[in-house]
Amino acid sequence: MTATVATSKTAGTQINLAQWTEGMKRSLLRQMLAVVSRPGILSFAGGLPAPELFPSEAYAEASRAVLTDGAHSLQYGPPFEPLKAHIRELMALRGVEVSEAEIFITTGAQQGLNVATRLLLDANGQVMLEKLVYTGIQQVVAPYQPQLLTVSSDLEYGIDVNGVAEHLVAGAEPAFLYVIPEAHNPLGVSLSLERQQRLLELARLYRMPILEDDPYGLLQYDDSAVTPLRALDDEWVIYVGSFSKILAPALRLGWMIVPEPLRSHLTVAKEALDLETSGFIQRSVAALLDTGHFPTHLAQLRRAYRARRDAMLTALSQHFPATARWTRPSGGMFIWVELPRQVDTMALLWRAVEEINVAYIPGTAFAIEGDRTAKHCLRLNFSNASEEAITRGIAALGALLRTVC
Amino acid sequence: MTATVATSKTAGTQINLAQWTEGMKRSLLRQMLAVVSRPGILSFAGGLPAPELFPSEAYAEASRAVLTDGAHSLQYGPPFEPLKAHIRELMALRGVEVSEAEIFITTGAQQGLNVATRLLLDANGQVMLEKLVYTGIQQVVAPYQPQLLTVSSDLEYGIDVNGVAEHLVAGAEPAFLYVIPEAHNPLGVSLSLERQQRLLELARLYRMPILEDDPYGLLQYDDSAVTPLRALDDEWVIYVGSFSKILAPALRLGWMIVPEPLRSHLTVAKEALDLETSGFIQRSVAALLDTGHFPTHLAQLRRAYRARRDAMLTALSQHFPATARWTRPSGGMFIWVELPRQVDTMALLWRAVEEINVAYIPGTAFAIEGDRTAKHCLRLNFSNASEEAITRGIAALGALLRTVC
Repeated sequence: MTATVATSKTAGTQINLAQWTEGMKRSLLRQMLAVVSRPGILSFAGGLPAPELFPSEAYAEASRAVLTDGAHSLQYGPPFEPLKAHIRELMALRGVEVSEAEIFITTGAQQGLNVATRLLLDANGQVMLEKLVYTGIQQVVAPYQPQLLTVSSDLEYGIDVNGVAEHLVAGAEPAFLYVIPEAHNPLGVSLSLERQQRLLELARLYRMPILEDDPYGLLQYDDSAVTPLRALDDEWVIYVGSFSKILAPALRLGWMIVPEPLRSHLTVAKEALDLETSGFIQRSVAALLDTGHFPTHLAQLRRAYRARRDAMLTALSQHFPATARWTRPSGGMFIWVELPRQVDTMALLWRAVEEINVAYIPGTAFAIEGDRTAKHCLRLNFSNASEEAITRGIAALGALLRTVC
Repeated sequence: MTATVATSKTAGTQINLAQWTEGMKRSLLRQMLAVVSRPGILSFAGGLPAPELFPSEAYAEASRAVLTDGAHSLQYGPPFEPLKAHIRELMALRGVEVSEAEIFITTGAQQGLNVATRLLLDANGQVMLEKLVYTGIQQVVAPYQPQLLTVSSDLEYGIDVNGVAEHLVAGAEPAFLYVIPEAHNPLGVSLSLERQQRLLELARLYRMPILEDDPYGLLQYDDSAVTPLRALDDEWVIYVGSFSKILAPALRLGWMIVPEPLRSHLTVAKEALDLETSGFIQRSVAALLDTGHFPTHLAQLRRAYRARRDAMLTALSQHFPATARWTRPSGGMFIWVELPRQVDTMALLWRAVEEINVAYIPGTAFAIEGDRTAKHCLRLNFSNASEEAITRGIAALGALLRTVC
């Protein structure tokens, strides 16, 4: 029997899809990443950690040991408790004391965002988030066809807490507020302690859960870093952590810190998603952490990324037009650049790729649908290129910018 | 700051949860598995493959080679195309010709069921499924608070196609019909070719997608096996496959075969769930399959499981009361037993565990909520115990049954 695929250009299949898919589109970010990842391009576009810093050998050794240790590592099984002890230590490095009963293991942080959303958000419910926000959370909430309550952010202190308050005073009852308080993606800003405190006061007063996404929390390069929201509140904050940026993304391993009564709900919701997170991966990561080399590895990561950030900040000062301004991130992987309003960074991207073989992500890619207020902005990643390449690439990009600014 | 966890016994947290969670409960199956997995219990309860048959050494070798090969195996990345060529070959073993453009890689088959549901099912929409059904699909659809259209099955030929037709004639428009045509879980029955054809006629006539779950399709022990529905229709069937039962569950790797126009929709929906499936796992499984030993491994699995099935069937004949009847599965991992109607297999389970250290799953665990028609039935797994243990355990269970039948 041969296929008879419908010829309708929009649907392309006869199968009726759920309503929300009508507004579905592939994340602009991911589409762009596909375009700009061709060989020869110096990419400041993606959010890739530096592969040369992955602990590949140590992980190979750990996974070999786990596989030799017995067939149970490839079998179905409950969450691997010894991994939770390691996560407790990571949280302590982050300034947060947690009990293992509050730890929930996930198949990467993206699944954490998903499972939290599934527990908290009703169809057509409200979600509060920043106007410029990690695209992954937009994809997570899309199937619920929610009402999006948006809030501005400034490039020095992070999310506009007054904006949050205005929504709440006006009667909003969001299922949650989503934030990346430390080393924001895409803005590279960290939320000040004062704003953290005000945000938590609002959360308690208006009974609003906060979904705290902290993938870069352990990648801090200065002494200025503050603790996550979870350090100040264990009742309204649902914390999401990740091994992707501190070990390696392909492990697809993350965790949540949740009020303990939520854990049984999370267990049910997660079972529905993927039954369980690979016991093999959980055991091999625990074995890797058992070696005790993680603090050295983390120090090495911080040193390398700090040098790359500094190289990019220096190059920006030297080569970008005086009319540009940018964030000075204390951690993470991204710098956000604002250019004069007449610049269209989407149009400019194609010139950058064609003329100088350099890529970045235009600001619009992170905007809540339809918003064009960041069309003169761009995001630069500094974690996945050498200092030399960063200096060279920013110089070239600066020269290109001077033709339009 | 210390936790102030609300004392409400039902909620246990102050955070408002989504409406669907009110009816949420942990799968009865999973709860039971936790109870009966204590040391010393001979368990016919779970759906565990035999760990001594995992290709642990070959997998250790494959993953070592992949990790030595370069840091890209631990980086983010697109689906690993060479794995799709292997999946094409597995589908050919299953009697289905597919193109790589129709293959979609998932983080286990459970994610396949999820992502399909997310694309097809609207909140409060209709889903058609058997009265006795894999509990995982019930968990997948629960958040949508769907209308469940149920259909009976018989123990010889599988799902009652007339029952499906009755719903459709009465105007039902389900988002999909869920079926395991080969080696049904929990019933151990395979759908006859004639019923397959009638089911597909209905699918085409009423434009009803079929979600075909085929985790045991390659575990066939007799010559009687038929091809999956997907071999007869590539337009209305969404096929879900899994490496869990033919390699190992902790790899969390599966695939879907879908009409090609659906693939871009799946990509978006899956990105939201977990960004991507571990590239490390994809590459190491591809490397394992590159060695060419899979056909030998599969033959070994079939031989071992066939012997265990036969041992269980023989023991059932010898030791179970004459009033009992059971399925004779041509594949998979499960035998379904019907006892006289007065027997309550849930009550009997506690006696089996306490008195003879043997466990099984009561039929009710698989029933759509509230249904008690299988309270005299039980499911036996034969893949995770030796022939000797099977013979001994079934003899003991038979003796216990004779005290109530």
